Amino acid sequence: MRARFEPVATEGAARTGRVRTAHGIFDTPCFMPVGTRGAVKHLSSVDLSELGAQVVLANTYHLMLRPGAETVAALGGLHGFTGFDGHLLTDSGGFQIFSLDPKVDDDGAVFTSTYDGGEHRLTPESAVDTQALIGADIQMVLDVCSALPATTSTLATAVDRTADWAVRARRHFLDHLDAPRRQSLFGIAQGGTDIELRKRSAEATVATGFDGYAIGGLSVGEGRDDMLPAITACTDIFPADQPRYFMGLGDPVGIVESVARGVDMFDCVLPTRLARHGTLLTSGGRVNLRRAEYAADDEPLDAGFPASPANRWSKGYLRHLLQVGEPTAARICTLHNVAWLLDLMARTRTAIAAGTFADLRADVHRIWS
Amino acid sequence: MRARFEPVATEGAARTGRVRTAHGIFDTPCFMPVGTRGAVKHLSSVDLSELGAQVVLANTYHLMLRPGAETVAALGGLHGFTGFDGHLLTDSGGFQIFSLDPKVDDDGAVFTSTYDGGEHRLTPESAVDTQALIGADIQMVLDVCSALPATTSTLATAVDRTADWAVRARRHFLDHLDAPRRQSLFGIAQGGTDIELRKRSAEATVATGFDGYAIGGLSVGEGRDDMLPAITACTDIFPADQPRYFMGLGDPVGIVESVARGVDMFDCVLPTRLARHGTLLTSGGRVNLRRAEYAADDEPLDAGFPASPANRWSKGYLRHLLQVGEPTAARICTLHNVAWLLDLMARTRTAIAAGTFADLRADVHRIWS
Repeated sequence: MRARFEPVATEGAARTGRVRTAHGIFDTPCFMPVGTRGAVKHLSSVDLSELGAQVVLANTYHLMLRPGAETVAALGGLHGFTGFDGHLLTDSGGFQIFSLDPKVDDDGAVFTSTYDGGEHRLTPESAVDTQALIGADIQMVLDVCSALPATTSTLATAVDRTADWAVRARRHFLDHLDAPRRQSLFGIAQGGTDIELRKRSAEATVATGFDGYAIGGLSVGEGRDDMLPAITACTDIFPADQPRYFMGLGDPVGIVESVARGVDMFDCVLPTRLARHGTLLTSGGRVNLRRAEYAADDEPLDAGFPASPANRWSKGYLRHLLQVGEPTAARICTLHNVAWLLDLMARTRTAIAAGTFADLRADVHRIWS
Repeated sequence: MRARFEPVATEGAARTGRVRTAHGIFDTPCFMPVGTRGAVKHLSSVDLSELGAQVVLANTYHLMLRPGAETVAALGGLHGFTGFDGHLLTDSGGFQIFSLDPKVDDDGAVFTSTYDGGEHRLTPESAVDTQALIGADIQMVLDVCSALPATTSTLATAVDRTADWAVRARRHFLDHLDAPRRQSLFGIAQGGTDIELRKRSAEATVATGFDGYAIGGLSVGEGRDDMLPAITACTDIFPADQPRYFMGLGDPVGIVESVARGVDMFDCVLPTRLARHGTLLTSGGRVNLRRAEYAADDEPLDAGFPASPANRWSKGYLRHLLQVGEPTAARICTLHNVAWLLDLMARTRTAIAAGTFADLRADVHRIWS
């Protein structure tokens, strides 16, 4: 089903509104916590609802291998499996597979399972089938991801193959039982930081026609000066009445700069991974709670963010738990970082609606640049 | 302060009621989840309150080494540190230290830190000082624990040294600033499974006079036929109007048999440790959720315990998370096991009050023996 973007307000290219899918609506711009194997590490679906997460990600590569897409389907699909009743999105597994040095040809990719060394094949069609079984609200097409930096010719090959696969995926999806009624399928533009290739990829993706549009293959180590024009090259072409998703971005400056260019949706493992290592996103910037200076600090973790679910504990207590490896620390820090980032998105939505997004953007730069 | 046991009902030697301390009251018989280093693994103080835990344990040995008793004191004492506003109890560290092959003489024990290899000394007096700094509601005396089986002469030496140390600990505690006003100090009877030594130890402990009485050095691998008479040897001597605590016991049969002998308080790491390995305490007995038979099981974890906080997820989902090592699984299983054991204690209290404890005891044997 075509996901519609319903605008509430704009400020320049930045926009806030709602995305409507077969499952319901969610507010944008939004951050989607990543539950790779069917759970955000240390959190349950109850926690995610209490944190106010409206969309959660899961990973097709991991779920197809463990416990298997059929098992997820037998256990109620991803909603029944995880117990999360908000929106769910599965990536296609392309990003993971292309990090495993797969054998790629025009038909698809053959890769080796990181679980048991077994050989598996993924094609644009089987990625659709697998994601139909998993049953998230939003599927992503199988794309070809190039590590950056890459030569123009490598990027061009990836863009063209992504476009071919997109046509096949879309056709297969539309022929698919009731998936098109229950699910949306998003296309992905590639092209690295090459503006002409980005435009070509975005145009081809839009020409094929998808339920929403994503920017893939960025935020992989390239500088922001290279990344931002590549975003604009895509968002200038993506239809205004459909959602736009920047895959794999979660840093505050990257988010506000992408929002300023008209992106609606974000995901990243960074906030939860940082949390497990004791690095917090706070109103004053990054805090590495493992530092000795916090050993006897009886202040709450982020006094500037009173709604943090972690604020009833002191920095000293949480540092102690981190130092001795207590999993409670990883949990509390994860709750905080996810809450903080969801709050940044809520403040972004409010700011755009109030016409003060430029101020918020400047604030984020002041603290995080 | 003397902890008083206020009876509500008895059935044979089994008793239910309330324990009153300087901090307030808690219901007995009770199970105390173990937060060794200041947190029950995977849970926060908010979780423990929501689970209905009324008393939580922490470990003096671990906290005196990391972050240090002074740091706990500076961060508000154990209540402020952990954020738990129920009752807190610290063991003396004796059990941990005696597992480290310490050098023991009449004065105290010298042991090597498992954190950094440093040498530390603990005496009956310093254990009181350390626990006064940590600031739990209930302190335990430093006792001498013998591994079982042990010769009568080894056990007798441990009993006599425990008695000497108890006198010194009690004297030091009563001389201690305001600790006796804020805290209770419990004595510990030793003696292994030797009935005469158990009696001698219990009598000496009661003669010294404590705010509550514990049974130490049992549930360390001896059979139940040896353990149960050793419990009775102590509870027959302990005063009826003060609480009785069996240290380190957490299996359902052991609990109901000890309750039947007049024990009020229990603690054990087993329910939380089992949970992290996917072994569940359920209304039907132990369930090893890692077994392949649960891979596609869409039933809740324990349909016979509808109040379980884990019941909104299927066995198949939780098994998957366990199999791929997701920490969310350990958390959900921990929530379940703690909830289940707290519920067993609540059912025990209700049964004694209703005069049906014999039935509950028989039920527990039927399922767990």
